[in-house]
This record gives sequence, C-alpha cells and structure tokens, in this order.
Amino acid sequence: MTAHDTRADQATFVHEIRVGWGDCDPAQIAYTGHLPRFALSAIDAWWEHHLDGDGWFQMELDRGTGTPFVHMSLDFRSPVTPRHRLMCEVWPVKLGNTSVTFRVDARQNGSLCFEGRFVCVFIDPNAFSPKSPPEDMRAVVTANLRPE
Amino acid sequence: MTAHDTRADQATFVHEIRVGWGDCDPAQIAYTGHLPRFALSAIDAWWEHHLDGDGWFQMELDRGTGTPFVHMSLDFRSPVTPRHRLMCEVWPVKLGNTSVTFRVDARQNGSLCFEGRFVCVFIDPNAFSPKSPPEDMRAVVTANLRPE
Amino acid sequence: MTAHDTRADQATFVHEIRVGWGDCDPAQIAYTGHLPRFALSAIDAWWEHHLDGDGWFQMELDRGTGTPFVHMSLDFRSPVTPRHRLMCEVWPVKLGNTSVTFRVDARQNGSLCFEGRFVCVFIDPNAFSPKSPPEDMRAVVTANLRPE
Amino acid sequence: MTAHDTRADQATFVHEIRVGWGDCDPAQIAYTGHLPRFALSAIDAWWEHHLDGDGWFQMELDRGTGTPFVHMSLDFRSPVTPRHRLMCEVWPVKLGNTSVTFRVDARQNGSLCFEGRFVCVFIDPNAFSPKSPPEDMRAVVTANLRPE
Repeated sequence: MTAHDTRADQATFVHEIRVGWGDCDPAQIAYTGHLPRFALSAIDAWWEHHLDGDGWFQMELDRGTGTPFVHMSLDFRSPVTPRHRLMCEVWPVKLGNTSVTFRVDARQNGSLCFEGRFVCVFIDPNAFSPKSPPEDMRAVVTANLRPE
Repeated sequence: MTAHDTRADQATFVHEIRVGWGDCDPAQIAYTGHLPRFALSAIDAWWEHHLDGDGWFQMELDRGTGTPFVHMSLDFRSPVTPRHRLMCEVWPVKLGNTSVTFRVDARQNGSLCFEGRFVCVFIDPNAFSPKSPPEDMRAVVTANLRPE
Repeated sequence: MTAHDTRADQATFVHEIRVGWGDCDPAQIAYTGHLPRFALSAIDAWWEHHLDGDGWFQMELDRGTGTPFVHMSLDFRSPVTPRHRLMCEVWPVKLGNTSVTFRVDARQNGSLCFEGRFVCVFIDPNAFSPKSPPEDMRAVVTANLRPE
Repeated sequence: MTAHDTRADQATFVHEIRVGWGDCDPAQIAYTGHLPRFALSAIDAWWEHHLDGDGWFQMELDRGTGTPFVHMSLDFRSPVTPRHRLMCEVWPVKLGNTSVTFRVDARQNGSLCFEGRFVCVFIDPNAFSPKSPPEDMRAVVTANLRPE
C-alpha cells in the first residue's frame, strides 16, 4: 500500500498547458522567462478547480482575498518543447497562519521538466496586509495538503 | 438550408484559451497587448489540429515550411475577462500562390470580443524567401476555406 | 524647405526597445506575438513623455481617463532581431471627438521593420463609456498631430 | 574604506526597465509572472554590456556558447509599479567549472522590490552539454565577482 492509497480522496490536480512556437527561443525550447508564468497559471487554475470556478481574479475581486507571492524557487531539469503538452501537477505542501506553500511539478511525456516551490500570503487587497485565509480557502488547502 | 448545411464536412475549429488574473491589467480586463498573442496561438493550434499534431514548430523544423506574418488587423468589440473561457474560432478565408489569410473570431459566453484578420506567407526557412505551400498544407487550407 | 522645417516645434518622439534572446522564436527573430506589445508600450511611453511622466497607469488611476484600443493593424516589413535596438516612432494622426489614432513606425538600424495604426477611445474608467478627452490630453495630441 | 573602495574597477551594473500599465495586474502592481522575465533580461543586458554588445543571442549564435538556467529563486520584498523605473542591479556571485551564479537586486525609488539568485550552465548549443566557459566570458565574470 502506498502513501497514495491512503489518500484516495485526494485526486492529483494536473493543469495542462499547450506549449507553442511563440513560447520557444532560438534554442528551440521554451524560454526560461515563460516557465514561472506557466507555473503561476497552474496555481491559479488549482484554485479555480477547488473553488467552484473562482481563480485569483474572483478570489480578489469577488471574495476579497488576494494571495500575492513572497517567494518562488524553480529547478529546471529538462527542456520544455512544443512536442508534448506540459502537464503541471500542483499541490499545497504547507499551510501557515497567513501563508500557503505550493509545489508545481511540470512534466512532458512523463519526464520531469521543472519543479518549483511557491509561497503566497493571504491578504486583504484593500489594506495589502496579511490576514488569515477564509474558511473555505483554508478547507481546500487542508484537504489537499501533501507535505514535500 | 444555410451555407453551413452545404458544407457539412467543414467542422468549425474553435481553440479554447484560459484567461487568468495575470492576463489582466488594472482595468480588470485582459490587456490589449496579449490579445494578438492569443489569436496567434489559436492559428498555431489550427495547423496542429489539421496536420496530425504538427503546429508551427514542427512545420518549420520538421517539414521545412515557415509561415511568418506580413499583416494583422484586429477590431476589439468587447472586453475579455477571466470570467469565461475565450473561444477562438479560426478559419482560412483566402489562399494565394504563396500566402494564406486567416480570420480569428474570439468570443466569451457567446459574445464577440474581438475579430482579426491575419496574412501569412509560406517560406523556405533557410532562405527566408516565399514559396508555394506544400501539397498537404494547401489541401487543409482549401478544404476549410470559407470566404469572408 | 520640407514639411518638417515648418513644424520645428514638433520633435519626433522615438521610444527605444531592447530586443533580446527571450523575445525571439526558433526562426531567430522576434516573435510576431510580441510586436503589438512593443508598439503599445511605445504609445504608453508617448503619453508619459507628453504628460509630465504620466502614462496609461497614471492617466487611468490618477487622472480618471482611460484610452482602450478599439482597433489595431500592423504591416510587418522586415524581421526584428536583437542585433539592434528597436526604435519606435510614435505620433498621433487623427483626433476625433472621443478617439485618437496613433501611428507607430518601428525601425532597426534605419530600416523599417513594421508600421502600425492604432485607434483608442477616451473613456471614463468607472462607466467604461466614451467621453471627450480632458483639455491637456487634447492639447498634446493636437500639438503633435501629423496626418498620414 | 569600504569593500567598494578596494574594487574601484568594478562599476555597479544596473539595468533599467520601464514598467508600464500592461505589466500590471488588477491589483495595480506588476504581475509576479513578469518579474523573473525582468530579472532575466537584466542578466542578458549584463552580458551585452561586458561582451562588447553581445548578449545571449550573439553568445549562442555567433560565439557558440549558451548559458541556460538550471535554477532560479526570488524573494519578493515590495510591489513593483509603473510609478518608478525598475533598477536591476546584476552581478556574478560564483563561478564554477561549468556554471555561473548571478544575483539580481531590483529596486524602485531606492527601495528593494525583489532579489533573485540565478544559476546558469555554460553549454555547447549543438550538443546541449556542459562545458567550460570561453576565456573572455570567464574573464568578465571573474573581474566582476562579488560573493553574496
């Protein structure tokens, strides 16, 4: 029995990105400057998936909670190309009082292309000051927590 | 019987784009500077769909035919937001000896957001000189031609 | 005496853009999807230059006037590369009651790379409805008008 | 006498970036997804400044040495806005046998906005395999090394 078996309720969330010609640089691989943007859109999509279709846009403008980034780190393992879709697995690894840490592992054709760690702070957008997350956001993070 | 009925073999091609927080500007709508990029990725996806998975990347690097743009024009009808997916309908409207013209109509929730016209030239990438399109590319354009 | 001589007060406005590796695609030239974005940033810089340092950001948020685009068209004349800076000449060609039309001619090393035409509408950002431009914006457009 | 005094030959390299409306998200600050791209363009400009006008484009295509990224980490200290230029200080902190590590500190109006650490590997672009840097690249890195 693997760790995965014991958390049968936790479906792995994978966000698919179409990599195209315009994402590539003269080395014929996706330009490094685009990869953090890909990872961020995958985290945005993670929220959308877990909050009934509400991503960062609705979280901030409709629900009154922003989640700006205070840290990101990425390790690039192998080039990203247009020859396969980029499959970005996203999951929360840590929930603090006013912050959440996400992992994003991006794969193409089964191979790890890059892995990243992203720390966001929950804020009141008007004051731009940290706050505890609303109960529903806390709940979806907690339900999907998978420590590194 | 409508014009559509007489061309039952022509499935409408629609490329879906997820618009997110990061695509929006302080006016809370997608920044105009991103919209041409969205339209281009829809045209790239149109080729990919019709050439067995080969988009611009494979067309240029594997098949030896590039299709750079010589003209684009866009009319912006209503704002693009993250509240709906952006559905980009793509079709060729004209095939010249060495060029092809595409239309892209982008809609959200059924409303037209922008419409664009894009002229590409078929080239030999090594010489960067115009040429006739290969037979298979000509065939998929011809099969899907729908004049404006 | 040329037309230029008679308008000695009209300095040509040129916005310089550094084109880099990350702007280029596998064809080793700047990706077409970036060029409208370059032109837009040149228009934003035009306003900034003429309004005491206030570009679109301050125009909308501090001065209460937005200028969203309703149309753009571009003709691509020769490839843009990192081998030279991209010099974007910007000037208004037409001022309507609630709109302004800009031209952007982008050159590298003296050669025309692309030329574009851009129509913006003056709006009240809260209502997202057209309005007459404020007097100072009208004045800087009028002072720099140069019909096509 | 400060450390700076003893290295009078080391001018601080600062790359200036114009932040505009189109770089900002609905929170009215530059979108996080753009900041790594800003840092990368500053590193590209660092090479250009030190290699007689040759940035990544010329390094790879003319000089036969690529420097792809294997790691990046960024800490975001305060928001980036269009109200000031973004001044990106770049310097190498470590030179390995086949790698180089850069720091980028980005400031607006004297305040630190973000700081990043970036590891690149010197490669032969044809083989995409690591190699020792050419002598001139090693020399400019060594001459500007300033450990963290």
